[in-house]
Amino acid sequence: MPNPTAAILIIGDEILTGRTREGNAHYLAGELAKAGIDLREVRIVGDVHATIVAAVRELSGGHDHLFTSGGIGSTHDDITADAVAEAFGAEIGVREDARAILAAHYAARNTEFNAARLRMARIPEGARLIENPVSAAPGFSIGNCHVMAGVPGIFQAMVASVLPGLSGGLPLVSASWRVMVPEASLAAELGQIAGAMPDLSLGSYPFVADGAYGTNLVVRGTDPARVAEGLARLRAAFPEGD
Amino acid sequence: MPNPTAAILIIGDEILTGRTREGNAHYLAGELAKAGIDLREVRIVGDVHATIVAAVRELSGGHDHLFTSGGIGSTHDDITADAVAEAFGAEIGVREDARAILAAHYAARNTEFNAARLRMARIPEGARLIENPVSAAPGFSIGNCHVMAGVPGIFQAMVASVLPGLSGGLPLVSASWRVMVPEASLAAELGQIAGAMPDLSLGSYPFVADGAYGTNLVVRGTDPARVAEGLARLRAAFPEGD
Repeated sequence: MPNPTAAILIIGDEILTGRTREGNAHYLAGELAKAGIDLREVRIVGDVHATIVAAVRELSGGHDHLFTSGGIGSTHDDITADAVAEAFGAEIGVREDARAILAAHYAARNTEFNAARLRMARIPEGARLIENPVSAAPGFSIGNCHVMAGVPGIFQAMVASVLPGLSGGLPLVSASWRVMVPEASLAAELGQIAGAMPDLSLGSYPFVADGAYGTNLVVRGTDPARVAEGLARLRAAFPEGD
Repeated sequence: MPNPTAAILIIGDEILTGRTREGNAHYLAGELAKAGIDLREVRIVGDVHATIVAAVRELSGGHDHLFTSGGIGSTHDDITADAVAEAFGAEIGVREDARAILAAHYAARNTEFNAARLRMARIPEGARLIENPVSAAPGFSIGNCHVMAGVPGIFQAMVASVLPGLSGGLPLVSASWRVMVPEASLAAELGQIAGAMPDLSLGSYPFVADGAYGTNLVVRGTDPARVAEGLARLRAAFPEGD
C-alpha cells in the first residue's frame, strides 16, 4: 500500500514580504518523513480570505492530509479559521469547549478574557480540537485538514498532538555519501544506478568546499535493506568519498 | 498603478523530505519587496515532471512574474528546463550560445565538457539566458518565467542578473514597534487602527521573552510618509514599547 500523502499550507504576509524566514514547513517535513507520510507540496500564501479558501480546497482535495500554519491568533489579520470553515462548508462560531479551555487558562493567570482572546475560541462546527500545551488557544482538525498556530514553539507542540493519531506508512529512510567530485562528472553513472534501482530515490546535491567541487549523494527509500544496498552501490561506484 | 505581482516555485525532493531547509524563497522575497514587486505565493514541489509543468502554467498565468529555483543541473533528477519548455509549448535542445559559454568555462579550467555538462546547455527555444557568474551554466527567462539554479550562491547571483531588468513598482517600506504587551490585549485597538488606515498593512507577531508575552507590530506600505504616520499612531496607542 502506498504511503499517505500530505500538503502544507503556510499563511502569513510576513513570510511573503521577506520579514520572517519560514521554518515550520521544514520542521513538519522532517516529522512527516519519519511518520511515513509523503509530503508532496508546500504552499505559502498571504492573509487573503479568498486565496486561503481556494488553497485549502485544492490542497485538501488533492492529498490525504493538509496541515496549515498561521493565522489563528487574536488580531484582525488572523482569518484562517473562518477561511477553513468556508472551504469545508461548515458554520463557525465561539465553541463552548474551546471557550472553557481559554477561560480556565486566563483565570489561572489573572489575565482578562477579552473579546480578542474570545476570538481564538471560534472553531468550525464538527472540528476536533488540537491541544496547545504552550498557550492554551487550540488548533483544530476538520475533515483531513489540521489547522495549527504559526508561532514555531506552538506549531511544534500541535504537531506532536496531531501526528500520532494519523495513520502513517513506512518511514522514509535515507543514507548519504559525500564525494569530492563535481556533480557533472558522476552524473552519467548516477543516472544508470538510479535507473537500475527504481524503488529508490537518488538525489545529488553539489557543493563547494575550500574552492573544490563536491557532491552529496543521497539515497532514500522505505526499505532499509534496499537503502543500504543503494548506499553500497554508490560507495563502490564512487570510492573517492568519505 | 498597482505593483506587479510575482510567485516563486521551488523545485526539489530534498526540500519536501526535510533534508534541506529552503532559503532561496526568503532571500528573493526580500529582494522583490525592495523592487516593488508584490510576492503573492510561494510553492514547493518535488522532482515530478507533470507537477512542475502544471505549477509553471498556473503560477505564470496568475502573476506578472514567476521565478523558479532548482532542477537545472547536470543529473538525472534535473528536469526543470524540460518541464518549463513544455509548460510554454516551446521546443528544447542544446543551444549554441549556452554551449559556447560552458565550453569556454570548462576549457579555461581543463575540465572535461562531458555529456552531463552538455545537458546544462539545454535551453527552450526563444528563451533569454540568465548569466551565472559563479559556475557558468546559465539560467533562462521564457515569457514571464525566470528559471534559476537552486544552489543559494548561484541563485542569488542570478537574481542579481534578472531583477534590474524587470519593471518594478513602489518599494515596500516597513517600520516596526516592539511592545511588551500580549497580542490579545492590543488586538481591538490595533484592528481599529488598521481599519482607519486601509492603505497600510498592519501585522502583529507575538513572542515570548524571559517568560513575558510581547508583540512586534509591523506597519507596511509603499508611501514612506504614510508608514511613518502609521508608526506614530502605533507608538501613541501603545506607549509601553521600546
